[in-house]
Amino acid sequence: MEYEEPKFFHVMQYAAAADGDVIDMVSGNPDWEPPAALREALRDYADLSPDAFQYPPSEGLRELREAIATRRGVDLDSVIVTNGTGEANYLAMARAFDRDAGDEALLTDPVYPYYPGKVSMLGGTSTLVPTERDGGLDVDAIAAAASDETALIALNTPNNPTGAVYDLDAIRAVVSVAERVDALVLVDEVYDHFDLSGEFESALTLDSDRVIVTSGFSKSMAITGFRVGYGVFPDGHVSAAKTRHMLVNVAGARPSQYAVTHALAETDPEYYADARDLLADRVDAFTDALDAAGAEYSRPEGAFYVLARFDDFPGTMANVKRLIDEVGVAGMPGEAFGHARGDWIRFALVTPRATEAAERLADHFGG
Amino acid sequence: MEYEEPKFFHVMQYAAAADGDVIDMVSGNPDWEPPAALREALRDYADLSPDAFQYPPSEGLRELREAIATRRGVDLDSVIVTNGTGEANYLAMARAFDRDAGDEALLTDPVYPYYPGKVSMLGGTSTLVPTERDGGLDVDAIAAAASDETALIALNTPNNPTGAVYDLDAIRAVVSVAERVDALVLVDEVYDHFDLSGEFESALTLDSDRVIVTSGFSKSMAITGFRVGYGVFPDGHVSAAKTRHMLVNVAGARPSQYAVTHALAETDPEYYADARDLLADRVDAFTDALDAAGAEYSRPEGAFYVLARFDDFPGTMANVKRLIDEVGVAGMPGEAFGHARGDWIRFALVTPRATEAAERLADHFGG
Repeated sequence: MEYEEPKFFHVMQYAAAADGDVIDMVSGNPDWEPPAALREALRDYADLSPDAFQYPPSEGLRELREAIATRRGVDLDSVIVTNGTGEANYLAMARAFDRDAGDEALLTDPVYPYYPGKVSMLGGTSTLVPTERDGGLDVDAIAAAASDETALIALNTPNNPTGAVYDLDAIRAVVSVAERVDALVLVDEVYDHFDLSGEFESALTLDSDRVIVTSGFSKSMAITGFRVGYGVFPDGHVSAAKTRHMLVNVAGARPSQYAVTHALAETDPEYYADARDLLADRVDAFTDALDAAGAEYSRPEGAFYVLARFDDFPGTMANVKRLIDEVGVAGMPGEAFGHARGDWIRFALVTPRATEAAERLADHFGG
Repeated sequence: MEYEEPKFFHVMQYAAAADGDVIDMVSGNPDWEPPAALREALRDYADLSPDAFQYPPSEGLRELREAIATRRGVDLDSVIVTNGTGEANYLAMARAFDRDAGDEALLTDPVYPYYPGKVSMLGGTSTLVPTERDGGLDVDAIAAAASDETALIALNTPNNPTGAVYDLDAIRAVVSVAERVDALVLVDEVYDHFDLSGEFESALTLDSDRVIVTSGFSKSMAITGFRVGYGVFPDGHVSAAKTRHMLVNVAGARPSQYAVTHALAETDPEYYADARDLLADRVDAFTDALDAAGAEYSRPEGAFYVLARFDDFPGTMANVKRLIDEVGVAGMPGEAFGHARGDWIRFALVTPRATEAAERLADHFGG
């Protein structure tokens, strides 16, 4: 599969150029407030002495790494602060391929389009393995697809775009597959604060030397533009990942890391709970409307998205454009996420107008 | 050559652990104030609405790219804002190798250690080509070394570590060599604001489709920790570089880009002139002391560094440690910069104690 990122831009540009009022359910940018402590820390940072404006340690500010290590229950040495979760995923994938253990990546289908793009850039090949109808992991299919060529198995939970939260037992079974074929397992947990099921368990609890876990603060603190993510790498892989991080980026941005460090220390659990509750309310409103519209969907267990399928209205780019023009709602065509969900449309719920959009869809398809 | 970065850490850790008072002339971090407008912009940013905290465009904030394009006299489309000049260099090198035009990089010797590290990470091989004794480009040596295997020729002017400012005619001749062997020329101009010779001319004036110019604001605004750099890529290469940038980093940090954008618009030329004058004064004081110490050196035409050679005191790691313990001055061993200057020591002048360090060296070696 080609790197599909331009489809995002294509849809967003089409929506921006539309005549009528269009509700943007394309992008995954949170629309709510960042923590107050984050704003305050930025103000404080602006007044620090010049030495505080120079390179942070390449692997990230020590206080931030310590806070991450404590919260995630891992060794400080295993934590690399990266330029967003995107860089952490890149470092993890590069490490998987650099081991001379094959050049195939197994990715779930539907897939977050950046994953096959990164794999291809790193000289690897992607094999898409369909998930269950509800988005759950199909461990048997992954086991059947795995071979000596498999260097990497990449999982994302809570999942973009399906909203699935994977069972820890299923992830454990995938790790066993990885052990059999000498692959690494990347588990991208960037939506970990948006578990609506109450059943999310981090793959870090498996304590496996095959598992690299990535996450970040883009979603949990509503700061996708700050670019603060991290990877937790097992002993045998952290050194190579640190070297690549240094050679690509030298270090991440210190104002961002400083602000996140303080926000992490000074933000109450209520902040995260409120954002999660807001999202849960939107899921309720949106799925009620999907019921009224007679659409098929899986109720998201986490993350920001709902995948929906309308009768006789496959999620092609052409139909996504019709939805923009005729209904005033912009979603992402399912074909952007691999092969398995070409009939579906992804709606991102990170807009205050999610309920309004739901009503428009219910009126249009349910009418 | 191996990636030599750990030597920096080794020297800095040794200096930090030393008993006596040690003047740090190892790191290249500016020690002066950033522009006032940069601090002010950070404060303003802290109060913006949540949408200003989300992803900037992948290639950078448009206002920042426009300001760069205008100042450098290039097309807006050719400018990619990166996570520091380091990432811009990585993108440029990756592009050179991705063309299937060979896997060799010609690097000048002495060399900035990140360059061979990046080349090696990208699967290339580095050939070090010695410069002239004064650090000037040896075009004939580069022409002799170039072959069909050469994919990249990397130059840095003003140069770290030699302080040389390359003649534009010499760079033009290197570009001709690159044309002959189908190589790209990377010209890293991150020290462009610290031209002490008055003769620096950007390689952008060559308007060559073989030349990628990189630079950034780390040095010119004294903000190495903000990670805002850029690359100017010719038509045939900018799209591939943008894709790699997006797949590795998604985007750079928006608070940093916002602050730099405003500082660029609102900072008087005097700010840059003052920093340059400060550095020139330090060069005077430091080279006077080197004269008193009977050392060989080339007076830097630009950048932050002086390479010096003391009689019967080659710049080995052991001697660098003796200098820390016995003289209280920490420099970088010449062996960290390739093969050509193993007898030399690099001193960074970005400390308010540069004059004091000079006196210590004069007392020790001149006594």
